[in-house]
Amino acid sequence: MNERKIRVAVAGAGGRMGREVVKLVLSEPDFELAAAISPSSRGKDAGELVGLPACGIEVGHDLEESLSAVQADVLVDFTTPQLALRHAYIAIERRVRPVMGTTGFTPGHISDLDMLCRDAGIGGLIAPNFSIGAILMMKFAQEAAKYFPHLEIIEYHGDQKLDAPSGTAVKTAELVSQTRARMKQGNPNEHETIPGSRGGEYDGFRIHSVRLPGVFAQQEVVFGAFGQTLKIRHDSYDRAGYMPGVATAVRKVMETTGMVYGFEHMMD
Amino acid sequence: MNERKIRVAVAGAGGRMGREVVKLVLSEPDFELAAAISPSSRGKDAGELVGLPACGIEVGHDLEESLSAVQADVLVDFTTPQLALRHAYIAIERRVRPVMGTTGFTPGHISDLDMLCRDAGIGGLIAPNFSIGAILMMKFAQEAAKYFPHLEIIEYHGDQKLDAPSGTAVKTAELVSQTRARMKQGNPNEHETIPGSRGGEYDGFRIHSVRLPGVFAQQEVVFGAFGQTLKIRHDSYDRAGYMPGVATAVRKVMETTGMVYGFEHMMD
Amino acid sequence: MNERKIRVAVAGAGGRMGREVVKLVLSEPDFELAAAISPSSRGKDAGELVGLPACGIEVGHDLEESLSAVQADVLVDFTTPQLALRHAYIAIERRVRPVMGTTGFTPGHISDLDMLCRDAGIGGLIAPNFSIGAILMMKFAQEAAKYFPHLEIIEYHGDQKLDAPSGTAVKTAELVSQTRARMKQGNPNEHETIPGSRGGEYDGFRIHSVRLPGVFAQQEVVFGAFGQTLKIRHDSYDRAGYMPGVATAVRKVMETTGMVYGFEHMMD
Amino acid sequence: MNERKIRVAVAGAGGRMGREVVKLVLSEPDFELAAAISPSSRGKDAGELVGLPACGIEVGHDLEESLSAVQADVLVDFTTPQLALRHAYIAIERRVRPVMGTTGFTPGHISDLDMLCRDAGIGGLIAPNFSIGAILMMKFAQEAAKYFPHLEIIEYHGDQKLDAPSGTAVKTAELVSQTRARMKQGNPNEHETIPGSRGGEYDGFRIHSVRLPGVFAQQEVVFGAFGQTLKIRHDSYDRAGYMPGVATAVRKVMETTGMVYGFEHMMD
Repeated sequence: MNERKIRVAVAGAGGRMGREVVKLVLSEPDFELAAAISPSSRGKDAGELVGLPACGIEVGHDLEESLSAVQADVLVDFTTPQLALRHAYIAIERRVRPVMGTTGFTPGHISDLDMLCRDAGIGGLIAPNFSIGAILMMKFAQEAAKYFPHLEIIEYHGDQKLDAPSGTAVKTAELVSQTRARMKQGNPNEHETIPGSRGGEYDGFRIHSVRLPGVFAQQEVVFGAFGQTLKIRHDSYDRAGYMPGVATAVRKVMETTGMVYGFEHMMD
Repeated sequence: MNERKIRVAVAGAGGRMGREVVKLVLSEPDFELAAAISPSSRGKDAGELVGLPACGIEVGHDLEESLSAVQADVLVDFTTPQLALRHAYIAIERRVRPVMGTTGFTPGHISDLDMLCRDAGIGGLIAPNFSIGAILMMKFAQEAAKYFPHLEIIEYHGDQKLDAPSGTAVKTAELVSQTRARMKQGNPNEHETIPGSRGGEYDGFRIHSVRLPGVFAQQEVVFGAFGQTLKIRHDSYDRAGYMPGVATAVRKVMETTGMVYGFEHMMD
Repeated sequence: MNERKIRVAVAGAGGRMGREVVKLVLSEPDFELAAAISPSSRGKDAGELVGLPACGIEVGHDLEESLSAVQADVLVDFTTPQLALRHAYIAIERRVRPVMGTTGFTPGHISDLDMLCRDAGIGGLIAPNFSIGAILMMKFAQEAAKYFPHLEIIEYHGDQKLDAPSGTAVKTAELVSQTRARMKQGNPNEHETIPGSRGGEYDGFRIHSVRLPGVFAQQEVVFGAFGQTLKIRHDSYDRAGYMPGVATAVRKVMETTGMVYGFEHMMD
Repeated sequence: MNERKIRVAVAGAGGRMGREVVKLVLSEPDFELAAAISPSSRGKDAGELVGLPACGIEVGHDLEESLSAVQADVLVDFTTPQLALRHAYIAIERRVRPVMGTTGFTPGHISDLDMLCRDAGIGGLIAPNFSIGAILMMKFAQEAAKYFPHLEIIEYHGDQKLDAPSGTAVKTAELVSQTRARMKQGNPNEHETIPGSRGGEYDGFRIHSVRLPGVFAQQEVVFGAFGQTLKIRHDSYDRAGYMPGVATAVRKVMETTGMVYGFEHMMD
């Protein structure tokens, strides 16, 4: 017996993440591309849009219109915080499970979307980060901080990145703070002969942001104690590294009910 | 009210680990040295033995004799597999909680000692490894292997070490095998132009043992997946790095009942 | 006054390295694409071949024919050892400076090609490796080995690579052997409980080959001495990382005379 | 024929570096301890001072007095900038070759001492750093900066260190600036949401100072370019790691004439 494939619609298909999702859906044997939406690429073939052979799916310009025309099981949405909320409502209304890769949802939105998903009997996910490795790094750092209150975070990104520290570094710092015995590290009398060399302070520990060409996204959390050092490091080489997480999410929302916040809750 | 100090007897006090334990006991404010046993150093002052000022405790040559002469709460034992079992019985008989830093106990021994400890209403610990960092490394590796079945272990020790891989590397490999989807990594047709370059194989993955002067003990577990790498690394610089774990164990066995195997079970 | 651009012909334009070279030539302001040769892609537009807009240069199928039809200053050749020698002769005959990214030239070939280049008054380069970083890594390792005879090489490549160790690791080992005091490292009585765990031996030191998905090409040379460790590490993320070296070579062969072997000799 | 040993006087013998030097002199077969000076340890046996068996040399309290009483070939001086200049003059006057491990000599002092050494026909060395590995790291970083102008320095020291960045990091930055194409790295519009996270700026590039317990001294210089990263890292585990450099210096000053500034000039 042939298992039915999961039909996936992709919103934001012309963006950098969206293109990777289209490639993923076209290459996984249990996925089928139901629709691809990208106003700036409308009318193109979705396969050709991403550098693959034509697949016969024409890129649409509006999610509502596309979801009315086809039967989709899951929506993967890498659009913008401005569009994402409306897209989630549109999807749930049609019993299409939303997998949202955007930030900006408030706790109120999340609980409302969760109720709607439950009413519709479908699963859903809102995840700022689909990288299994990055999520494990944060989880392990949070656990290690229980035993090793002395730590520093060093993150590396491309040299054109605008903000420092990175979102992942701040998120890691928040998680670490929940388990770490609060204290201010370092010598109370330390002084910087070059200002900033000790990094940025977050709740008593330091974050260092390195910016170099050729780097995509790397982070190291270093714990120091008498006679030992523990390091947890994650290196991302490209956006494609997020796709195994997206694939897991697409399969999981087919089996769950309610809206989940954070991809870590879809990992056992 | 002044809390009573924990009175610690140290067996193997003249060995490399034992000396560190004596230093620890003499420096922690809530510990008190009850006895130090080392046949080859008998008669010396225990403080002077470890390079500290005299402490008034003369090193004894036999555990039974020493424990009969003083009131001890805990025995910390870094002797040999040959002596350790007898020492554990001697300690439990006198309601002295054993903290055993040796290997070689069989499951039968452990369950027998556990029963005796429970009868006596005391705690105890048998731990091949007191390094909190090493234990966390192994635990994190075991968890990451659920998601990343592709991994290799690289361990670094001093160049005079006799055996390869290290005990910690083998232990890590065992733990990883419990959670990792079993598979043989690498290209089925790969060949070594220099034999051994692909490392030693354990259950489908590889272990590499580096031996260099100047290194005490380091290990890195590297996980690779499409577009990302996750690394967990632990560096030990000297034996003193194990002492925070010993101190935790001494305090914990005062509050527990029964013999625990593995220091990881004393970490929350 | 407008400087004349350097007109570059690319052989092997349809291959993975060749495509990067075409992209490079089309994007550097002082380069101009004179011809692109790739039998399997003949007739296509060279720009479209590499995912860029059409550039008006049709891909040819034979180097001799293409170089007869256009005026080229430099040939960049990433074909195969079988084709490369003939290509070098064809290029020099037409006073087109060859930049050959293939291996397999014998010392006899190199000295013959050098004589022909000198007669023609042109420069040329044969380079198995265009990565400035990799070349520096090898050079630094060779120099450090003078002071630190204890070292091991650890290299990382994708898990589908067939041979171990990598060509770069073997080349590094050769260079290191030239400066290192010859000795067999490790404990003379060391033994492997898992065969191969100590890695492959080259002239008394060890090479370890790690193979993991997600890795492109990385290498670390670790030197150990009493109380210290020195590491030199190079990470390549993709073929594009070789292009700055190719660009340097194209510019340099315009100013030199004779055939150079090894890109390191074009770095000051 | 038996080679005569090199007779070494050690000033600052009671300090942390001085003790290591005394141990070194007592253990190297071609060295002989001529005198040990340390006002705070006067009268003790020099061997016992450093935890070794008595060697029959009583610790003196004044360099001049000690050098008058014995025949020394070399003075190794790890005292303070305040004492060191006077000590160098005292040594040279007696044709004892000075190996000075202190900072604070002005160019005027150095050239004056050089003239005096040449007049006396003896060698000498002033070296702020005796770590061969650290010197190689700085040298390699300086050379790599010619090709890779994008770099950041990350240094790690114990958490009680007062100043940041470390002296080695500043020295590295100075050397790198001499060869690197001057430019300001990073996005011109980058901003720190946590001040200091981008590190301290030196001549357009960044330095990050990590402070953690358990770390002795480590430094990494990371170079980034399109598609690649080059890292040079040096880890010091303890003061003993400087002793091979001191031993080399003691032997070299026996064969040279004039005062050398910088240990790198004694490495071929």
